[in-house]
Amino acid sequence: MKLVIVGGVAGGASAAARARRLSEDAEIVLIERGPDVSFANCGLPYHVGNVIPDREKLLVTTPGRLRERFRLDVRTRSEVEAIDRPRKVVRVRDLATGRGYDEGYDKLILAPGAAPVRPPIPGIDLPNVFTLRTLADADRIKAAVDAGVREAVIVGAGFIGLEVAENLVHRGVATTVVQLDRQILTPFDAEMTTPLAACLRENGVRLVFRDTAESIRETPGGMEVQLRSGAVLPAQLVVVGVGVRPENPLAVEAGLETGPRGGVRVDDRLRTSDPDIFAVGDAIETTDTVTGERTQVPLAGPANRQGRIAADNAFGRDTRYRGTQGTAIVGFFGKTGAMTGASEKVLQRIGTPYRKVYVHPAHHAGYYPGAEGMTLKLLFDPQTGKLLGAQGAGGAGVDKRIDVLAVAVQAGMTVFALEEMELCYAPQYGSAKDPVNMLGFVAAGLLRGDHPQVDWESVAASADKPLLLDVRTPSEYAAGHIPDAVNVPVDELRARLADVPKGRPVVAYCQVGQRGYLATRILTQSGYAVSNLSGGYKTYLLHQPDPS
Amino acid sequence: MKLVIVGGVAGGASAAARARRLSEDAEIVLIERGPDVSFANCGLPYHVGNVIPDREKLLVTTPGRLRERFRLDVRTRSEVEAIDRPRKVVRVRDLATGRGYDEGYDKLILAPGAAPVRPPIPGIDLPNVFTLRTLADADRIKAAVDAGVREAVIVGAGFIGLEVAENLVHRGVATTVVQLDRQILTPFDAEMTTPLAACLRENGVRLVFRDTAESIRETPGGMEVQLRSGAVLPAQLVVVGVGVRPENPLAVEAGLETGPRGGVRVDDRLRTSDPDIFAVGDAIETTDTVTGERTQVPLAGPANRQGRIAADNAFGRDTRYRGTQGTAIVGFFGKTGAMTGASEKVLQRIGTPYRKVYVHPAHHAGYYPGAEGMTLKLLFDPQTGKLLGAQGAGGAGVDKRIDVLAVAVQAGMTVFALEEMELCYAPQYGSAKDPVNMLGFVAAGLLRGDHPQVDWESVAASADKPLLLDVRTPSEYAAGHIPDAVNVPVDELRARLADVPKGRPVVAYCQVGQRGYLATRILTQSGYAVSNLSGGYKTYLLHQPDPS
Repeated sequence: MKLVIVGGVAGGASAAARARRLSEDAEIVLIERGPDVSFANCGLPYHVGNVIPDREKLLVTTPGRLRERFRLDVRTRSEVEAIDRPRKVVRVRDLATGRGYDEGYDKLILAPGAAPVRPPIPGIDLPNVFTLRTLADADRIKAAVDAGVREAVIVGAGFIGLEVAENLVHRGVATTVVQLDRQILTPFDAEMTTPLAACLRENGVRLVFRDTAESIRETPGGMEVQLRSGAVLPAQLVVVGVGVRPENPLAVEAGLETGPRGGVRVDDRLRTSDPDIFAVGDAIETTDTVTGERTQVPLAGPANRQGRIAADNAFGRDTRYRGTQGTAIVGFFGKTGAMTGASEKVLQRIGTPYRKVYVHPAHHAGYYPGAEGMTLKLLFDPQTGKLLGAQGAGGAGVDKRIDVLAVAVQAGMTVFALEEMELCYAPQYGSAKDPVNMLGFVAAGLLRGDHPQVDWESVAASADKPLLLDVRTPSEYAAGHIPDAVNVPVDELRARLADVPKGRPVVAYCQVGQRGYLATRILTQSGYAVSNLSGGYKTYLLHQPDPS
Repeated sequence: MKLVIVGGVAGGASAAARARRLSEDAEIVLIERGPDVSFANCGLPYHVGNVIPDREKLLVTTPGRLRERFRLDVRTRSEVEAIDRPRKVVRVRDLATGRGYDEGYDKLILAPGAAPVRPPIPGIDLPNVFTLRTLADADRIKAAVDAGVREAVIVGAGFIGLEVAENLVHRGVATTVVQLDRQILTPFDAEMTTPLAACLRENGVRLVFRDTAESIRETPGGMEVQLRSGAVLPAQLVVVGVGVRPENPLAVEAGLETGPRGGVRVDDRLRTSDPDIFAVGDAIETTDTVTGERTQVPLAGPANRQGRIAADNAFGRDTRYRGTQGTAIVGFFGKTGAMTGASEKVLQRIGTPYRKVYVHPAHHAGYYPGAEGMTLKLLFDPQTGKLLGAQGAGGAGVDKRIDVLAVAVQAGMTVFALEEMELCYAPQYGSAKDPVNMLGFVAAGLLRGDHPQVDWESVAASADKPLLLDVRTPSEYAAGHIPDAVNVPVDELRARLADVPKGRPVVAYCQVGQRGYLATRILTQSGYAVSNLSGGYKTYLLHQPDPS
């Protein structure tokens, strides 16, 4: 058995190690175009920022170590130029010598990854305009910063762009992020990015929305980035992070099936349309486990798992890939954004019915020092309560709650199961009613009809405006409230029912939803048509982003 | 409808708030023996340690606020002395005035909690000998420390005892913990407490195992604690934390059923043997969701949930309590111990078949600064792989992994589902192969037969000793190895098979199990009868605790 693997980073290296564990006898050839195998691409922005000053740390392993430990035939700086499927041979070019040769295979695993998109604008090839994919890219960006960059422009407010922004700020570089969308982090729902965008601004990152770079030109002091809006941004460094596209030419030229966005088509054994060729990682299309749609998720965790599974199947095992759930996380300046499952915008696009709730808890007991706030959003089926997705934004503990919810989504759990979850509680770790329990209480109360709730979007869009009843304290109300809201504190509500006119729907709200819930219960039992504003004033504020 | 609730802390206060939300019309009487309602008992040790210097912060709410917001009839410093079930009346004593009176009820919820056990030894009633349950207890201990305590003895190495120990060390008190068992934290399996005990010692806590206090006597300088072993410990403060017992006299005298350990018997609606009386919190027996056994779990999270559920049922709703899973956590000196589901010792006691694996990963990518180590142990069904329990000990991120595993246990997931979990990954939060994925890989490899593993206990107990093959580097071997182990580094193993005698079973091990796994694969495929030592040398070390 001879296995050839094209690409030696996350998916390819995982496949190779797994293959050797499965068979001591197999011939395993790992062909990598670059000089490095299995490097920590997720760490690249932090090397630029000197958070990981030692470059060696990013080399998860080396070709030498892979040879020694796994007896792999590792060939770096070698490019596979073509696959001859009838002959079961790949055409390899040794980039050091220029020599070309054929390498036969019994099974082939493609793990070529994805390439950063470089928009074809004037100036994109100037020396200090970079994308960030490889160690060599990181070296070049770091060298530019080391040489003295005062101003940088990042095109694209995705995960990598914002990680680079944080690290440039750490290096003292004045950084502007230009984003075509009207929000950062497009996979997230817009309102969930409001606190994260605010955090970037507070830390000195300038955000420019609904705009993009049209050209870059050299100036005596460096460069100028010309935006579509007409604005001109001076910069000595430009980093382009507008997404990636599957490295599919090899597959396409070999006649393997690909999807509409270029991902190589595979079945649940990660087999391409050729049964002797598997494909894994950023280059492939997979199935979204929640929506059932075909999707492309360029993340290291799925790539590693796919590598193992492709190796299993190459050696005749029947191991299946369950699909990709879309769990993702990003952090900067001490804040975290994380998500799992479907977003609201995806559910809207594909027409899946859903309900949603928000909570704004602290990450551990408020009485223990250091509690940090977070916002969690939960999306679920309006009939069954089955979880569809979750998003979190805030300080410490967001990763934990999204991990918990990722497992709940994987297990097909409902909002009712969240009420019952028994999570770790001591005051420095959580709350007796954990944020995830709170999501369950609020969502289950909605579905059981105990707790009628309304989303801010519906309130804003309603033709006959409801009475907005602010049930917070007068001082909270004075510090900021929804326009036209009437203030009756919840503790006075029973005595002041006369101040709440009947005959008109009421939307109660407090800061996060808890007092609004009680107000809703009081008013419902007094004959009012009342709903609680889901997530309260804090959720309202999420929908009022800084216009930038 | 008139609801009377006995006990106003976690379960009772939750029941009262829930009851009011369910009914604006109900008469709700909350009777509490102490001066405070709904205080943060989990925060008491940290108040002693001045981590939470402000006592007010521990008052989650006050009788006044409960009256105002929930229109509750709150009666503190009032003791219910008897339940007259035929008349549906409780006998109340106003502790301030001494006046007794009857209070009728339609439904009654008992939430009396559990009382710390005070062993009947001479000196237990000396002034500076305390248990820690109430704010008043915390006040007294704090006052003693404030007045100048140099040496303290804590009797019992349970959760509260160790939290108090940490806080006394923070206050500069030389602290000795005396524990009858041969491990701290009895709910955990002994080997999982080894690193936690080491952490206590490193921070100056003296641990005395297999010993207990036989008497306490006053001396000119304070007190002396006489141990059973004959040792005498000087102390100016003694805190007794040897467990709690349900406050059941009211229930017992009213003829309600209780279990063998005193917990009030309830059904899954939390109804006692009297259909008009419910009971919640530390006073009750519940069902262990994993083992199906009756159990008593005195924790705030379950108490809060039970309060809600009892209120629901008191108002005629059909809400069920699914039982208690036993998720628990404790932290001190920056280390964490956490568990969920069944322990190995419980599975052994009840005769449930199981297998176990250990992993020793870092809490996030090793190349990102600040990665802290942890040990995770997973218990699962040997046939189906269904999860039975998990334990963790280490630094940051233990709480997250045990929460993830708690959800997996709740969902009835298997080890195979852990392999597939898609958790948040960026280098500052986790690893592309998360510690929970690693548990899944190791456990699934065991069940699939790919990865034969053996536990240290079996190796230690085996009659004909296997060959112990240390596959780490010579320098790791030199720094410490299992007695009689032979060193052949995994990277040399293929070339040095002649150094590994055949005809005798081989147990391979490395530091944590990964290289041992590869060695096992190499040797298996060369015809050896070989197993990998589960969790490697680090797990071996867990079984060699400091004898104290």
